Amino acid sequence: MATDAQQACFEAGIKFGSLYHQFAGTPLSPDSAASLETAMVEAIENQPFCTSVTVDIDEAALAEAADDHGYVELTGRFMEVRMRVEYEGVVVHTEMVMEDGYPLMRIVDLNDSA
Amino acid sequence: MATDAQQACFEAGIKFGSLYHQFAGTPLSPDSAASLETAMVEAIENQPFCTSVTVDIDEAALAEAADDHGYVELTGRFMEVRMRVEYEGVVVHTEMVMEDGYPLMRIVDLNDSA
Amino acid sequence: MATDAQQACFEAGIKFGSLYHQFAGTPLSPDSAASLETAMVEAIENQPFCTSVTVDIDEAALAEAADDHGYVELTGRFMEVRMRVEYEGVVVHTEMVMEDGYPLMRIVDLNDSA
Amino acid sequence: MATDAQQACFEAGIKFGSLYHQFAGTPLSPDSAASLETAMVEAIENQPFCTSVTVDIDEAALAEAADDHGYVELTGRFMEVRMRVEYEGVVVHTEMVMEDGYPLMRIVDLNDSA
Repeated sequence: MATDAQQACFEAGIKFGSLYHQFAGTPLSPDSAASLETAMVEAIENQPFCTSVTVDIDEAALAEAADDHGYVELTGRFMEVRMRVEYEGVVVHTEMVMEDGYPLMRIVDLNDSA
Repeated sequence: MATDAQQACFEAGIKFGSLYHQFAGTPLSPDSAASLETAMVEAIENQPFCTSVTVDIDEAALAEAADDHGYVELTGRFMEVRMRVEYEGVVVHTEMVMEDGYPLMRIVDLNDSA
Repeated sequence: MATDAQQACFEAGIKFGSLYHQFAGTPLSPDSAASLETAMVEAIENQPFCTSVTVDIDEAALAEAADDHGYVELTGRFMEVRMRVEYEGVVVHTEMVMEDGYPLMRIVDLNDSA
Repeated sequence: MATDAQQACFEAGIKFGSLYHQFAGTPLSPDSAASLETAMVEAIENQPFCTSVTVDIDEAALAEAADDHGYVELTGRFMEVRMRVEYEGVVVHTEMVMEDGYPLMRIVDLNDSA
């Protein structure tokens, strides 16, 4: 059987995959960045065990990329994401940041107080 | 060659397909409905020729469906959408409403003042 | 009221928006390109009035882009799409090709035999 | 620091969230089920540490649901998914099945030979 800490990590992974693949491709401009950040946070916080999400869209990168057509499609290069998942007393903090042009999702901290 | 009115209708269709298939599946609860409405509106208004979008999530239907698990996945049964597209002076109004359990997208009005 | 030709163009637009925003973001490699092409074609051909779809993934562009991590996420730069929509005797041919780094969707031919 | 087993579970979760939210909403009929199964498998197997995916679309449930309009939109009720993820010698088997009308993702087996 999986431990509570392993289950917590599994749940944390589900939230990242969900957030990324639900919203990748969304038309995005500097004017619409704030509303998309809020919607992503509130959508994923609906999922079980997900106690907190933050999404930061990089407005400088976005403004430059949107210069040609007024908007872009959302990909990992335009955002950083942090989440807190809690499962049976185990708290996992995770983040998604760009590394070498690839949106890397990773466990930052795991606190097994159980 | 397509006429401006035909082009306007083509553009209007693109926006509906985009909105529906970008956001279908999003985790949705009564608490997150307002932020998702706003994000959908602002995302699609980024697209060319799309001058106005309204999205109304049916909070009664949503509250009932979300009763079991606290949230649902967005599908057409939970929302109505209206759009105004303008292309070279032609204005098209479209809407998406449920009909017989199917999200029907249709042209409501076309005003070719050109 | 919209004409049959205008309705046909509206339907054609819906299919393009659907295809693009359903599948944008899909993990894609040279080895998986063929199965994704087939699935996109068959999925969109389910939609009303859509009689034919072709999707061509640019395997050279894909191979180069996938060189770093083994795969990419699908965006418009990796594919060309053609569709045939028929509505009440009106046949519309449309295509999506890249132009200036932007996936341009357009009406190629409209044959109103009605 | 997270253990290899916890990392393996995190990676397994990412794949499930990705698969579900990338493909939910896809137009689906009995005729297109096989090609969508194959595309989902090959797309997710592109992701790191994902050594095997199986997707089984429930053709009986699909045929009944598609009776009205000829097709449906993919949701969890139409499919079962199994995956094998391997991370630094730890092998995790996971599955997604319907339980009480909700697509439940869970760890079935974890084999830490490291």
